[in-house]
Amino acid sequence: MNRIEAQKAYAKLLIEMGLQLKEGQPLTISAPVEAQDFIPMVVDAAYDAGASIVQVFWRHGKISRATLERAREEDLLDIPDYVLDQEFFYAKKGGASLHFTGDDPELLTGLDPQRLQRYNKARSEKLKPFMEMTMNDEVPWNVAAYPTLDWAKKVFPDAENPVDELWDAILYASRVTEDAVGAWREHLENLDQRAQWLNKEAFSALHYTNSLGTDLTIGLPKGHIWAAASSTLPEGGEFVANIPTEEVFTSPEWNRINGVVYSSMPLIYGGQPIDQFSLTFEDGKVVAAEAKVGNEILQELLNTDDGSRYLGEVALVPYDSPISNLKMLFYNTLFDENAACHLALGKAYPTTIEGGTELEESQLREHGINHSLVHEDFMVGTSDLNIDGIREDGSVVPVFRSGNWAQ
Amino acid sequence: MNRIEAQKAYAKLLIEMGLQLKEGQPLTISAPVEAQDFIPMVVDAAYDAGASIVQVFWRHGKISRATLERAREEDLLDIPDYVLDQEFFYAKKGGASLHFTGDDPELLTGLDPQRLQRYNKARSEKLKPFMEMTMNDEVPWNVAAYPTLDWAKKVFPDAENPVDELWDAILYASRVTEDAVGAWREHLENLDQRAQWLNKEAFSALHYTNSLGTDLTIGLPKGHIWAAASSTLPEGGEFVANIPTEEVFTSPEWNRINGVVYSSMPLIYGGQPIDQFSLTFEDGKVVAAEAKVGNEILQELLNTDDGSRYLGEVALVPYDSPISNLKMLFYNTLFDENAACHLALGKAYPTTIEGGTELEESQLREHGINHSLVHEDFMVGTSDLNIDGIREDGSVVPVFRSGNWAQ
Repeated sequence: MNRIEAQKAYAKLLIEMGLQLKEGQPLTISAPVEAQDFIPMVVDAAYDAGASIVQVFWRHGKISRATLERAREEDLLDIPDYVLDQEFFYAKKGGASLHFTGDDPELLTGLDPQRLQRYNKARSEKLKPFMEMTMNDEVPWNVAAYPTLDWAKKVFPDAENPVDELWDAILYASRVTEDAVGAWREHLENLDQRAQWLNKEAFSALHYTNSLGTDLTIGLPKGHIWAAASSTLPEGGEFVANIPTEEVFTSPEWNRINGVVYSSMPLIYGGQPIDQFSLTFEDGKVVAAEAKVGNEILQELLNTDDGSRYLGEVALVPYDSPISNLKMLFYNTLFDENAACHLALGKAYPTTIEGGTELEESQLREHGINHSLVHEDFMVGTSDLNIDGIREDGSVVPVFRSGNWAQ
Repeated sequence: MNRIEAQKAYAKLLIEMGLQLKEGQPLTISAPVEAQDFIPMVVDAAYDAGASIVQVFWRHGKISRATLERAREEDLLDIPDYVLDQEFFYAKKGGASLHFTGDDPELLTGLDPQRLQRYNKARSEKLKPFMEMTMNDEVPWNVAAYPTLDWAKKVFPDAENPVDELWDAILYASRVTEDAVGAWREHLENLDQRAQWLNKEAFSALHYTNSLGTDLTIGLPKGHIWAAASSTLPEGGEFVANIPTEEVFTSPEWNRINGVVYSSMPLIYGGQPIDQFSLTFEDGKVVAAEAKVGNEILQELLNTDDGSRYLGEVALVPYDSPISNLKMLFYNTLFDENAACHLALGKAYPTTIEGGTELEESQLREHGINHSLVHEDFMVGTSDLNIDGIREDGSVVPVFRSGNWAQ
């Protein structure tokens, strides 16, 4: 396949496997303006699949930065209702939602972290009902990627054509081949078997250790469910929320996490890098945190609300995956989290506990799972990571050895 | 000035002279995604002028065409409330509104005209409150242009760099020089003197004749006001709604227009060309209409509602203006209407009659001025156009001779 054919295959994969779009279903797309030549391929794939209407919401990194830097704060924090309404209008018609990441990882470097955090919080509060809808799998959604020039230059600083290089990496990591949909069916089947094994074991806790100094015990709540790439809609259809995805994930028990964990890759939070950090947990709460890069930003993230100091996701990714075999850092969570075991600060997926989507927010923690305005993944996997599963009776089962599945 | 400097001067002109943006005022911009490198200059000019916040709404011509062609009609016509809300949110804070035209003039050629008209009507109905707000000059607004490749190729089919050629034409027509704001002050002064003379004359009617066959008498309502480029806000500030602008305009008396008028340039209506047409009027109403190009589209326009067969604007533009001296067709109303006398089908500006902005819609026609969901300019000026002003007492005063002001 040449690049155009591969881009079309990627577009088709996102519509047919990512969203599994149905005849008569609306679709919203959010994308950077740089993607103006690629998004029409996605729109065509959607109409080919029978989309009833497609609406694209564009964003412009440099203009967003200018506004975050220069707008009057009173107006910056007054998030309009239409930002939520434009998502709900289509979601309430059963619409699918496709989001392209790809902004410059350093887009917001140098801006006032406290002001950014006030903005992020205001926006998250406004969009909370839509975030809950997606985290409950009430509508099909997918996160994919478009390689903007600034992102590509960060990943391939010495390349002559960094965008081409990053396209190749995205297409490879996303398993885009001539029969991409078929290849993905097989991949999902493999991930599903891992999830089934973990669900059968129903461990009480996981114990992480590696040479970075990580020594962390993560309790798992009763009735936790390990999920793989496929999500199930209330009415029974399926979708794949991330492309690529290599993970099997569940929710930790919010107040039963103890020890210390070291990050293994930088995390890009709202256009600002946080790197080389450790978090110390006592009874689930982060009681100490220190980053060599972006420490102030890390502290702002932890201080978002009373749930942002607790974990909301445990995800297992073998060190030996197509993405990590590229041996590159994407500076983008969608890719980097699928190259390494990761955790997330903040809100847990209610779908990862039995009956979770029926619970009110106030009931979630009673059942062991955290809630927050944020959900921020960070990578902890290394080539020497060992994870033990601990059963109710205290017996120990190797889950990961040297960064890969033990069995 | 090199091109970048000229583009920055254009951006500054739109903010400082077009919108006359004030400290603490929000700004919305609508623009094609192709303008991604230029719009940041406008955003910077706005923040430099003290904008409280700038919000850009992007559009993508080819994706709009795909949706107008392929979306399910039920969804296409269900215009979301947020389309209005996103304008109102800022307008209600006193926000200014800047719109960049520049889509491919043939963007929608070949699509079903009736379906397009149903869409245009549904969208106009939803946006009617905002259209009224702008046509009553309640908020500062400006229409400017960005040269997309498809538009540039239509205007300069043989040029090696059509976008550069069209940039030059736009910047020249918009009187962008190193002291563009100063040049515009002088230009506005000249236009204002024309309007003052016409207001003093207070003609009862205008009589148009030329060699195309035009022989049209247009009644003017009692209390009509000739306006020039500058519009006045309710609280007293000013703005310039079009850049470029060469016109002096008022409202005709909706039911006192008789005779025939021939178009002198193509009209691009919603991405579809209408050309070489004539309209025959009896007591204000178009009773016969025929276009050699786009006749079906013309009929759909006339059939929009009961006001779209009546005129809502009479505008006088000398044949000898910077734009018409370029001797080129822009295939874009913003430029072509400022190269020739023009009329508009549909809604009249309530600001062009004494006390007009205080009137309810149902009262407008009693005072002589038309209302409709549409307002569509079309060009009738030629190098041999003569216009006579007819006073109440029947005496005749030459207004235009051979396409230019008679005095």
